[in-house]
Amino acid sequence: MTALPWGPASRDGLTPVPGGVTAVDGVRAGGVASGVKPSGREDLALVAADHPAATAVVTTSNLVKASSCRLSERHAADGRARAVVINSGNANVCTPRGEQDTQRLATATATRLGLPVEEVLVMSTGVIGVDLPIDRIEAALPDVVADLSPDGGHRAAQAMLTTDTRTKEVAYQVTDEQGGTCTVAGMAKGVGMIEPAMATLLVVLTTDAPVGGPVLRRALQQAVRTTFNRISVDGDGSTSDTVAVLATGTAPSPPGLESLSRGLEAVCADLAHAVVSDGEGASRVAAITVHDAPTEAEAEQLARAVATSLLVRAALHGADPNWGRILMAMGTAGVDFDPARVSVACGGVTVCRFGVTTAFDRGQAAAAMDQPEVTIDIGVGMGDASATLLTCDLTPEYVRFNAEYTT
Amino acid sequence: MTALPWGPASRDGLTPVPGGVTAVDGVRAGGVASGVKPSGREDLALVAADHPAATAVVTTSNLVKASSCRLSERHAADGRARAVVINSGNANVCTPRGEQDTQRLATATATRLGLPVEEVLVMSTGVIGVDLPIDRIEAALPDVVADLSPDGGHRAAQAMLTTDTRTKEVAYQVTDEQGGTCTVAGMAKGVGMIEPAMATLLVVLTTDAPVGGPVLRRALQQAVRTTFNRISVDGDGSTSDTVAVLATGTAPSPPGLESLSRGLEAVCADLAHAVVSDGEGASRVAAITVHDAPTEAEAEQLARAVATSLLVRAALHGADPNWGRILMAMGTAGVDFDPARVSVACGGVTVCRFGVTTAFDRGQAAAAMDQPEVTIDIGVGMGDASATLLTCDLTPEYVRFNAEYTT
Repeated sequence: MTALPWGPASRDGLTPVPGGVTAVDGVRAGGVASGVKPSGREDLALVAADHPAATAVVTTSNLVKASSCRLSERHAADGRARAVVINSGNANVCTPRGEQDTQRLATATATRLGLPVEEVLVMSTGVIGVDLPIDRIEAALPDVVADLSPDGGHRAAQAMLTTDTRTKEVAYQVTDEQGGTCTVAGMAKGVGMIEPAMATLLVVLTTDAPVGGPVLRRALQQAVRTTFNRISVDGDGSTSDTVAVLATGTAPSPPGLESLSRGLEAVCADLAHAVVSDGEGASRVAAITVHDAPTEAEAEQLARAVATSLLVRAALHGADPNWGRILMAMGTAGVDFDPARVSVACGGVTVCRFGVTTAFDRGQAAAAMDQPEVTIDIGVGMGDASATLLTCDLTPEYVRFNAEYTT
Repeated sequence: MTALPWGPASRDGLTPVPGGVTAVDGVRAGGVASGVKPSGREDLALVAADHPAATAVVTTSNLVKASSCRLSERHAADGRARAVVINSGNANVCTPRGEQDTQRLATATATRLGLPVEEVLVMSTGVIGVDLPIDRIEAALPDVVADLSPDGGHRAAQAMLTTDTRTKEVAYQVTDEQGGTCTVAGMAKGVGMIEPAMATLLVVLTTDAPVGGPVLRRALQQAVRTTFNRISVDGDGSTSDTVAVLATGTAPSPPGLESLSRGLEAVCADLAHAVVSDGEGASRVAAITVHDAPTEAEAEQLARAVATSLLVRAALHGADPNWGRILMAMGTAGVDFDPARVSVACGGVTVCRFGVTTAFDRGQAAAAMDQPEVTIDIGVGMGDASATLLTCDLTPEYVRFNAEYTT
């Protein structure tokens, strides 16, 4: 899915399969319109496992945390859940009835599915500060339950979107050397790597690998750390960011945990890439890699300072190999490095060596940057750790869009 | 100069006077074109005191620090300096000859003025990574020395500009209750509160107050802390940010230190405001104040998170009283607060109370925000400390400009 130096080092043993979250056996999904979105588009999605499943969730680190995140955390605490209900068009954040409406949504969904309420996770995204039209959503629940089907992944992926221009779905069959096999799949909603502080990221992952809640939780955290936490302007997260996984354990001859982890990471990497590509107003994606750092944490911190710089992202829009702005941004990262050791390559063309300008063909560099996907490689000459962040260019369209759209 | 709740609580005892930095007796200034700017505009400024003067400088906290900043710090370390030479059009940063060229510029200026080189401070701003055309600048030094005059403040202010659309000059006569009086003046270059990581801030302040170097240094640091460090997207600073003050001590009956400090703070506040108003592509300025915080540091941290949020600044452009984005941004500040206690007023119209939406007239709020200067007041109900940050709106013009302009 991506030619960028991103995600697992190798995709050996991973075979793309169709079907999105319902590529996993025993998972059904559906999506309908409940009338929350003024456009009348689909806005209520449901994913359900036919049998008991393990679960794990990761939610936003924002202090202002949606009631949906808090409920999903509580319900996933015992490592078990069977359904995820997602409404789009209204985030149910900063509203007087927030907590209460989230609870009602979970309860009504559980009742319709014949499950204990603790087996249901909730995700909400959309405008904030406006009361959730819970009556309308409740009234549409029978429809979305009726819509559940083993090929409904795409409809669910559609119904979770807000300002996204397309669905994000991916599924892999994972095979290990012993012939063990399972499926790992996922869908995401999010266009907000530009500013996760509002453009919520919601992700539902499914797998038929047999794995207990605590192990699944560690595998999920690891996958999120190097994928969804390495896109965007800052790692803070919106009020509602949620990544949840359901593991049905029904694979007849599953692979080992390591293969499952690789599968999870690949799915998360592909979805993260899809989110950045669909960034609001974005015209290109950049993979910013800091090489030769003393530690991965320092590499990440430097790459993040570059990826979040407005001036770097504006230069990216102009296909300008502006290594000066890159050095400036690095200088604000709070990481100790020696500017005299820094080298920078834009689109594979080295434009800075030893912290000063180097002779390069400006036309060639500009052409290498005027692509939908660009690599920016920065060497700091201090070790052997590296980290990659994905970002997109800052465009006039982004500003126009966010000046006009009330979230 | 500003109706915003910004700068000293009261302007009592401060009378605006004309003349910019040369409003101070015994200070001469000039500005000429040396041919560094492709446009042929003025690009070499000089400010000189006729007699020995005290000095203090504050420079960028960026790890990648210009050689001009390092030289100015060294030369100001003994608290004495008599001249500031400023070249615009080339920042002399990230170039092999950087250190050497800065030294040459200081030495040549000192020679022309008949001063020890340690009495000269240097500021440089403009493109980076390109060798400074030092020969051209040296050749123009006699011209700028000849141009020095007691009414040359405006010409110097003009010659230090880069992408600024106008000069920033201010001068006050400061009078205390005992009838003591002095003049405090300043000029600035900078349009970059949007992203100080490149759009360098340079400031030269002058006064005839008699004050020793160490005291002047503390007064300057205090004035910078609440003014220049409270504008912009982040407080990191470009590679070249420098604020320098020359104090001639020639005022016949000067006021006390407190009055001098108030004068310095007023000059810095006005210049900071002028810099934000001239922000690249900016169409309006916002004063973001966090009230009722436990400490000033926490108030500042929360206000900074709001002032640096792309989504808040895009909403500001759209005159959208989007308090939801404000709360989200606060949630990423790393400061503990209770969302349920937060109130937000945009342009004086309360739009959020107790962390949830409140009934307000949307047309009235939008009208209150569709102004060149807007106040955003945020109460957190946790104490009695407050802090104000100035920012401007994020506009499509900003992005277009920075995609096309190579710094």
